[in-house]
Amino acid sequence: MEEMTKVVLDAMGGDNAPGEIVLGAVNAVKDRPELSVVLTGQEDAIKKELSKYTYPEEQIQIVHTEEVIETAEPPVLAIRRKRDSSMVVGLRMVKEGEADAFVSAGSTGALLAGGQLLVGRLKGVERPPLAPLIPTKNGVALLVDCGANVDARPSHLVQFAKMGSIYVKNVLGIENPRVGIVNIGAEEEKGNQLVKETFPLLKACEDINFIGSVEARDIPDGVADVVVCEAFVGNVILKLYEGVGATLLSVVKQGLLSSTRSKLGALLVKPALKKTLKKFDASQYGGAPLLGCKGLVVKTHGSATAKEVYNTLLQCKTFKEQNVNQKIMECFSVPEQE
Amino acid sequence: MEEMTKVVLDAMGGDNAPGEIVLGAVNAVKDRPELSVVLTGQEDAIKKELSKYTYPEEQIQIVHTEEVIETAEPPVLAIRRKRDSSMVVGLRMVKEGEADAFVSAGSTGALLAGGQLLVGRLKGVERPPLAPLIPTKNGVALLVDCGANVDARPSHLVQFAKMGSIYVKNVLGIENPRVGIVNIGAEEEKGNQLVKETFPLLKACEDINFIGSVEARDIPDGVADVVVCEAFVGNVILKLYEGVGATLLSVVKQGLLSSTRSKLGALLVKPALKKTLKKFDASQYGGAPLLGCKGLVVKTHGSATAKEVYNTLLQCKTFKEQNVNQKIMECFSVPEQE
Repeated sequence: MEEMTKVVLDAMGGDNAPGEIVLGAVNAVKDRPELSVVLTGQEDAIKKELSKYTYPEEQIQIVHTEEVIETAEPPVLAIRRKRDSSMVVGLRMVKEGEADAFVSAGSTGALLAGGQLLVGRLKGVERPPLAPLIPTKNGVALLVDCGANVDARPSHLVQFAKMGSIYVKNVLGIENPRVGIVNIGAEEEKGNQLVKETFPLLKACEDINFIGSVEARDIPDGVADVVVCEAFVGNVILKLYEGVGATLLSVVKQGLLSSTRSKLGALLVKPALKKTLKKFDASQYGGAPLLGCKGLVVKTHGSATAKEVYNTLLQCKTFKEQNVNQKIMECFSVPEQE
Repeated sequence: MEEMTKVVLDAMGGDNAPGEIVLGAVNAVKDRPELSVVLTGQEDAIKKELSKYTYPEEQIQIVHTEEVIETAEPPVLAIRRKRDSSMVVGLRMVKEGEADAFVSAGSTGALLAGGQLLVGRLKGVERPPLAPLIPTKNGVALLVDCGANVDARPSHLVQFAKMGSIYVKNVLGIENPRVGIVNIGAEEEKGNQLVKETFPLLKACEDINFIGSVEARDIPDGVADVVVCEAFVGNVILKLYEGVGATLLSVVKQGLLSSTRSKLGALLVKPALKKTLKKFDASQYGGAPLLGCKGLVVKTHGSATAKEVYNTLLQCKTFKEQNVNQKIMECFSVPEQE
């Protein structure tokens, strides 16, 4: 019998909670008998959603919590004060070994703070980075770091590269993932102080497949599987990806609906267009892990639908089965002297 | 009679030189009697292109140069060594007051180095930023800085904001332009060290319309007219804009051509789509000025077509007529004591 993976899911987080969150959990346990989900949040609201479906009931559990952390709250304060919130209770369960992972579509800031303050870092990890997946022409890339810890040091970036590489290999199944550092030119002498100092360190790493500098222009083209940068730049990349994508698609849509002729054409192209655009959507791969924590903490989009929640739950399962944290620890441990 | 504007145009720079460059010049002088263009580069090649068109010949002059600076060359070295290149000769003409502006689609690095080393900074300007225009939903925004000087200080960013504001107001005609600083959240306490230090300085500026932090996600939506950031981040934004745009459009195209039905639809939507996408194209506004130099230095895309060259020449004309450099100097000058 396969080992069970137990994931705590924040039923109150995100724009579509609890409806889409609960549905994602239902679909996941139906497909995976070796997955169990704990939903934290308002019991009544969760029960009401669950009552809509038939599913293996022994695989879903509810832990009632009274409070909800709002996106606008100061993260650290919220984590410290709202001890009976769906997020804090979930993170504590991971901390205490009662669950393997915690997943939330709620406040990113609170989740990052909670991951560090409540769950804690693996031994040897200096800083846990948030590593979302971004779509590329033919798949996906892991962008590490997009977290809240800006002004990183070179040693942090080296750890991001290593953890990202382990994650992509073991969870996404990409062998020998290509690791690139975000830079403003391809040459080694280019870049800001941080990149210039980090570059030779990455070059010297024997356990990653470092391909050198990656220009932002080439990221969507899929030149690297792991894209390393400090969090400010990572955040800009992540947000701009979404922004340019959304604006461009709205411009395309506007074009399609601008005349009678184009409207007719739009009807004809719609199914095919939908299909190709679906490929350019990272949510099918799951949420963004906060790498290097004791246990797994995953952030899904605030707008996460049942599909993204479903994929994230499966991602947690793979993470556990592949012993990713064990591999991270082995990578960072100083070998003991004989 | 209107004052003449004299622009030196690098006939050798960019992927489409000299053909598209020369055509852009021809079209511009035909439309603007008060514009004169000096083409620097291989005389024979330029003459061959010019011979294809009829135009007011007294408005176009050729200055023959032997050398061409290649994109791959180390910028500072190239500027120092290739004294008879189309770029160095052009920049020197601006320096010596023989021309108002220099425009090139050639090596960005060499142009930035040449702008600073040969043309020089206006009094009071600490660092000349490169400020390309990026498309937004309903127009365009000036992204300042995307240059080669990374690791900027807060005082630099304040100057970028002021110069950007003056440029957008006077050259693009946007009254009271909204100035935002790129940040990873809307709150004042967010950001890296540089942004946190710069924010209150911008807030205290009385001569700009500072709207606070701008998240990368909102830039394409057009929330700000002047988007301030240091050059590493600016470069990432600029390149990612191009990258996401190109990849997404290739995905859309792939969708349109994926079936017989969609191909038929594509024929119907093509004209309308082309029209709306044209709006999402900053090249119609001209090239990227290197702000704060004595004279004007403008970089167009390496792939610049005649249309972009044409628009850039008109932009140089407006720059001169509006006395932009005079306004920048007034903004930075310390008032003398009575």
